[in-house]
Amino acid sequence: MRNLRITLAYDGTDFCGWQRQPGQRTVQGELEAALASITQEKLSVDASGRTDAGVHALGQVASVATASELSCETLQRGLNAELPDDVVVTGIEDMATDFHATLSAVRKMYRYVIDDGQTADLFRRHYAWRSYHRLDEVAMQRAASGLIGRHDFVSFQSAGSPRATTVRTVFDLRVTRDEHLIQIEVEGDGFLYNMVRAIAGTLVEVGRGARDVSWPTEALAATDRSVAGPTAPPEGLFLVWVKY
Amino acid sequence: MRNLRITLAYDGTDFCGWQRQPGQRTVQGELEAALASITQEKLSVDASGRTDAGVHALGQVASVATASELSCETLQRGLNAELPDDVVVTGIEDMATDFHATLSAVRKMYRYVIDDGQTADLFRRHYAWRSYHRLDEVAMQRAASGLIGRHDFVSFQSAGSPRATTVRTVFDLRVTRDEHLIQIEVEGDGFLYNMVRAIAGTLVEVGRGARDVSWPTEALAATDRSVAGPTAPPEGLFLVWVKY
Repeated sequence: MRNLRITLAYDGTDFCGWQRQPGQRTVQGELEAALASITQEKLSVDASGRTDAGVHALGQVASVATASELSCETLQRGLNAELPDDVVVTGIEDMATDFHATLSAVRKMYRYVIDDGQTADLFRRHYAWRSYHRLDEVAMQRAASGLIGRHDFVSFQSAGSPRATTVRTVFDLRVTRDEHLIQIEVEGDGFLYNMVRAIAGTLVEVGRGARDVSWPTEALAATDRSVAGPTAPPEGLFLVWVKY
Repeated sequence: MRNLRITLAYDGTDFCGWQRQPGQRTVQGELEAALASITQEKLSVDASGRTDAGVHALGQVASVATASELSCETLQRGLNAELPDDVVVTGIEDMATDFHATLSAVRKMYRYVIDDGQTADLFRRHYAWRSYHRLDEVAMQRAASGLIGRHDFVSFQSAGSPRATTVRTVFDLRVTRDEHLIQIEVEGDGFLYNMVRAIAGTLVEVGRGARDVSWPTEALAATDRSVAGPTAPPEGLFLVWVKY
């Protein structure tokens, strides 16, 4: 058996998230169906992490065991011919048998995009959170810096996904503006459920002036989800890359 | 009666173009319905030009006569609340009675976007023409320069829209690359039916090496539509601005 690493991008708008669910259109479901059609095997793929409905990926990574003897290039071409036009495989590689997309991941980067222009950027309506407040990205960046490091991020975790530990390391957290678009980029060794969206929702409270610059750090220290800001909506979130 | 100038952006993907047609979803139809709902008048708007199904606008301009006494700001807010999320009004101004969005236009800029990346940029699938050939943008730029100036552009006009003259002035025609995206930007005093798309289709023939750099200029000189290249598809085309 071979062990393949599949890198893929998808537009999450019309998907009920990554994970296969009966009767729902999911990325895993589409990818497994395309693989089955090409290899004539019934395969099960693992991803670096599940993404929710509406969340996008530029560089999601999946792993799959297959007996197929097709070359990586042929498989990639075949998958892209089979897959719907909102998913694209950007690379396939043969890996050692101990590679696992979920378990071997050591670092990930997510981007959260906010549109705070005077009028909505309609070409971003599925790819950014629309803010009706003009945001202060300098205050957001200052607030964000307090979250960098190794911390218990339980204040930024949604219920529903129990983990052994809620301690994670955020290596970098940058807030930048390009005209009417604010980007929050977070690099970490792993993320709790909805963690990036909770960080984005919290930083936006600072950006619109509703909360002080020191508040996100205080919310972190409180280790209590109810203290931090709301979970930002899925359409602004992109899984950018995964490192192994 | 007031004479209003309305500037608007739209995502053409789900529209059957600009022009009102019974039973079809069109930008003019949506804009007139929103205006009727706010002003309680039955109004008819004119645009700088009609755009086809799938063609986008960043700065389309429309004019409309109204008896409404609402301020421009109130009208804009009201229209954006009424309009579907793939159209947005970016500005409204009171104009002199002789202003007419179609007849007063003196210059327009269109952008045509092509994605020639190794794998498709799926976030651009409705906003760029997908090319499976890597294109030589330097050759395209050289070819494009021969089209600048005052010429009979009949070789780049689709049938179906008779005009008094097919002579137009192209002030500027630039081909640039930003990673996997090629942009063709054309500024002119007016455009024949499908002219930008025919120019794009012709330049792509040069870019993929099927035709010589001098060919678009020869096609122009031939004043014969059958000599120039194919009409590029609508999804790559954006009406960027109109000057008066």
